[in-house]
Amino acid sequence: MRLRNKPGALDTIKNSPQYILMDGTDWKGKWQQRFEKPHPIHIEVGSGKGQFIVGMAKANPEINYIAIELQTNAIISILEKQLEEELPNLQLLLVNGADLDEYFETGEIAQVYLNFSDPWPKTRHEKRRLTHKNFLQVYEKIAQPEAELHFKTDNQGLFEYSLGSLSQYGMTLQKVWLNLHDSQFEGNVMTEYEEKFSKKGQPIYRLEAKFN
Amino acid sequence: MRLRNKPGALDTIKNSPQYILMDGTDWKGKWQQRFEKPHPIHIEVGSGKGQFIVGMAKANPEINYIAIELQTNAIISILEKQLEEELPNLQLLLVNGADLDEYFETGEIAQVYLNFSDPWPKTRHEKRRLTHKNFLQVYEKIAQPEAELHFKTDNQGLFEYSLGSLSQYGMTLQKVWLNLHDSQFEGNVMTEYEEKFSKKGQPIYRLEAKFN
Repeated sequence: MRLRNKPGALDTIKNSPQYILMDGTDWKGKWQQRFEKPHPIHIEVGSGKGQFIVGMAKANPEINYIAIELQTNAIISILEKQLEEELPNLQLLLVNGADLDEYFETGEIAQVYLNFSDPWPKTRHEKRRLTHKNFLQVYEKIAQPEAELHFKTDNQGLFEYSLGSLSQYGMTLQKVWLNLHDSQFEGNVMTEYEEKFSKKGQPIYRLEAKFN
Repeated sequence: MRLRNKPGALDTIKNSPQYILMDGTDWKGKWQQRFEKPHPIHIEVGSGKGQFIVGMAKANPEINYIAIELQTNAIISILEKQLEEELPNLQLLLVNGADLDEYFETGEIAQVYLNFSDPWPKTRHEKRRLTHKNFLQVYEKIAQPEAELHFKTDNQGLFEYSLGSLSQYGMTLQKVWLNLHDSQFEGNVMTEYEEKFSKKGQPIYRLEAKFN
């Protein structure tokens, strides 16, 4: 996601340590302490501008959410939303999804969300896809045994790849949607991308999978 | 598939025992003897009028094919094609796919094809879907350890269901296509249905899966 460089973004981030961290190593195994109440922790890897995770945090106060995003210019938009909303169940983490096991203890996470991740269509970039086995390994390491991965995208190639990648990793597909917006699925919270692309009539793909 | 009742169909079948059987129990474990040469045996469960399996048998002389179809009025069309072609690597079996372990020995089958199977969209008919776990169990029983299941359909609901069902059964998805005719896939042999529905611009879904 390319965003305009926002002047002063880093200052805003540094001035909001109650909501956002640029390094999570100090909180490994202690994330519950950063929330008002202890609840299962759900993370979204690659939160973009955060419409999904802010919407989820509002809708589900009994879940603690952590937005993980690599790009300063994207996560600043989530922070701006959070400075306004002051949701007690939302935290932000400005790090690379590949390193999540440095920031979370084994079993600390109850659920992982991936939404409209970068498709990296070229084969030589396969390892950058957030559903590549190297990433799945990291998610599994920090996730509880019963944890689920929920993934949606409008990208056909990425979804085809991901179905195979998850299955070959040994994950179990609980349910698959090949046209989410034309289904009975309830409680869908849309991302910015999703609003834009679903209006064009493109199908939105979704899956729920378990790690074992 | 509803077809006109073809008069004399049963007579034609009874007069062609070199190509078609109405009961395969006598050949359990001995199917290679019904072919000109021993080759890996691939079966299609629900062959309809047989355009796919006849096309495959022509294209791949080093594979022995068995068309399995429950409906007399459908399999008679395959038989008519075969009486004309006299392919040495094609046999027909007029039985119910649920009973395949009565007709094939453990490990006798190298590959299973399902093409445009009846979607049975009502939940109460789930057990009739050819990708229901009860069927998968039968296929696995007669298949070699390395065997693959290749499945294609234009039916979104059946494909969504099947991805979950195969995965939950413990099968591994090797590769998934969400728009087969817009992909790089080579050597596709179309079924009658496929020709008809792909012309309307509907996507054709396809998967290849292993039993373990």
